[in-house]
Amino acid sequence: MKILRAEHASSTYPVYVGADLLRRRGLLEPHLKHGTVVVVSSAEISKLYLADLKQALWPQQPRLLLVPDGESSKSLAQLDQLVGELLRAGVGRDDTLVALGGGVIGDLTGFTAACYQRGLDYIQVPTTLLAQVDASVGGKTAVNHALGKNMIGAFHQPIAVLVDPGVLRSLPSRALRAGLAEVIKYALIRDAEFFAWLEEHIEELLELRAEALDFAIERSCRNKLEITQGDERETGVRALLNLGHSFGHAIETAQGYAGWLHGEAVGLGLLLAVDLSCRMGLLPAELLGRVESLLQRAALPRRLPSDLTTERLRELMSTDKKKRAGRLRLVLLRALGDAFLCEDFPESDLRETLRHYAF
Amino acid sequence: MKILRAEHASSTYPVYVGADLLRRRGLLEPHLKHGTVVVVSSAEISKLYLADLKQALWPQQPRLLLVPDGESSKSLAQLDQLVGELLRAGVGRDDTLVALGGGVIGDLTGFTAACYQRGLDYIQVPTTLLAQVDASVGGKTAVNHALGKNMIGAFHQPIAVLVDPGVLRSLPSRALRAGLAEVIKYALIRDAEFFAWLEEHIEELLELRAEALDFAIERSCRNKLEITQGDERETGVRALLNLGHSFGHAIETAQGYAGWLHGEAVGLGLLLAVDLSCRMGLLPAELLGRVESLLQRAALPRRLPSDLTTERLRELMSTDKKKRAGRLRLVLLRALGDAFLCEDFPESDLRETLRHYAF
Repeated sequence: MKILRAEHASSTYPVYVGADLLRRRGLLEPHLKHGTVVVVSSAEISKLYLADLKQALWPQQPRLLLVPDGESSKSLAQLDQLVGELLRAGVGRDDTLVALGGGVIGDLTGFTAACYQRGLDYIQVPTTLLAQVDASVGGKTAVNHALGKNMIGAFHQPIAVLVDPGVLRSLPSRALRAGLAEVIKYALIRDAEFFAWLEEHIEELLELRAEALDFAIERSCRNKLEITQGDERETGVRALLNLGHSFGHAIETAQGYAGWLHGEAVGLGLLLAVDLSCRMGLLPAELLGRVESLLQRAALPRRLPSDLTTERLRELMSTDKKKRAGRLRLVLLRALGDAFLCEDFPESDLRETLRHYAF
Repeated sequence: MKILRAEHASSTYPVYVGADLLRRRGLLEPHLKHGTVVVVSSAEISKLYLADLKQALWPQQPRLLLVPDGESSKSLAQLDQLVGELLRAGVGRDDTLVALGGGVIGDLTGFTAACYQRGLDYIQVPTTLLAQVDASVGGKTAVNHALGKNMIGAFHQPIAVLVDPGVLRSLPSRALRAGLAEVIKYALIRDAEFFAWLEEHIEELLELRAEALDFAIERSCRNKLEITQGDERETGVRALLNLGHSFGHAIETAQGYAGWLHGEAVGLGLLLAVDLSCRMGLLPAELLGRVESLLQRAALPRRLPSDLTTERLRELMSTDKKKRAGRLRLVLLRALGDAFLCEDFPESDLRETLRHYAF
């Protein structure tokens, strides 16, 4: 087991990474006050992992609250219902929520913890690769609004994160591959050595080899922590984590969040950001080939959805919440492992990039 | 104009107190970024004060969003609608919300600011005495849940508070008197000298004499700030601000929040807390008479609602969110101006207090 420490201005907490941690008896006991523990999960995930997790929560006997699977659970309506169930269960400020699931469960549970009676403790137990390397660490929580994803939320740090790569054995292959896009993202942003490692080991990750998974997940979490702890509320460097996301969110919005997975959209977004950086003369074209090859080996999309015009995509990018004072800001690369925020990219280069990847 | 400084761990901001501040041209300009300013208010309040407030916001031209009057606006449904309107208006992280109204508007706007895109700046411009001396300062924001008041919220400090006692001229007399209950509360908790002042000047406050109002509001805000800035998230001393509130909330809950005003319920709660403290031998009975007399001069209730049994009241007090690990904690007094948290009051004394004030 590796223990990373998240050191945020508002709090400090451990990120435990290692196989079979869910079953490690009493692992989370030091983090639980004497109060009630409530696990929030889906029917499917809890069937697979709740029995194991009870070991880590021992000697506490958790209650279980179920929410439906899928993005539609990230809603104020679901929050309202969860709060009602917590109130009926008499949950108070000394009690702890545990999010057992992917990004949807983690974001919803985290935001519920942030605002239930103005703040409860919560623990993240992510069960998808995407949630393990991204959503569960850093304290971003949110639900969606009909007019935009993650528009209602809070920065609220968990008191502990438990990452057990063993749970990925039950993850659908498509979700695993989508999660790899976020892993590749960290390498591109700030970790050239990790990028080279991924080029050598990506098949091992796809085959769920424990050693490779442990390494990649820990390295990703470490990168995420190093970025977020200097900038908890995303006023500066944290924005670099949005590499590929302005493109990706626009694709997801165009599809009404019912088409590609988030990681698939982000994966293509990475390629577009690298392409634009090359087009602007910031990067050698050779890197574009390396990124494309990595995406191909992970069987991630390398073309825009067939029904999405470049005009529509460009328009959707402008409504992204990352824009500041009306100008679209993009994360671009000036070298492998060296991302930066750019406001003055040539519009013509952006359009050419979009056209180049149009179906 | 007096300027108090709120020094919280998470931020520092000024509380401006003085007559006609709404019309002071450019007063708030240093607090506004270059972005959009959105005033959230009710139709009635904005008709009375928006024109004035535009002076303080000058040279910004604010947009106005209206929400219905009344406690029912403190809901997730209203939050959802506000967020929609802000998204349609293209409001982003550099923009500022301004709450122009009483506690309902302030709590709703503050919580919207706390969670819209994970956090916007906001300014409080309270227009009731209750909001001026209590709700607008300290960063507590919330909406209600069907099962409990203020159950969904956040600690989110405003970037400035503008308190103009002049606006109280349009406040209904009943609301003014209810606000006085919170003023008396500060004196009881920690300011014996202020209590003596109130005994001399309460009629001047009821007559809206400017000098007395300015003094009482500033003194109340100062007391609130001194308590909250040492304990932003209510882990300790801030709980003393709940003097009278365990009783008061139970009364409000029994009436479905459709009977007494919050301040009226709190006013009686103060009397009950003092009575219990006397019964337990902590306080001389003489203080009970002084508090009762002050409430009488402010024409505040001194008997429980006629349809509320002591059994029901006691039961409702147990579901209050201030209880910790299952035990009801009450704020009691061991002297005038010296409140403390008490878990081990005799249940029989509490029951006698409740019976004594039963209708």
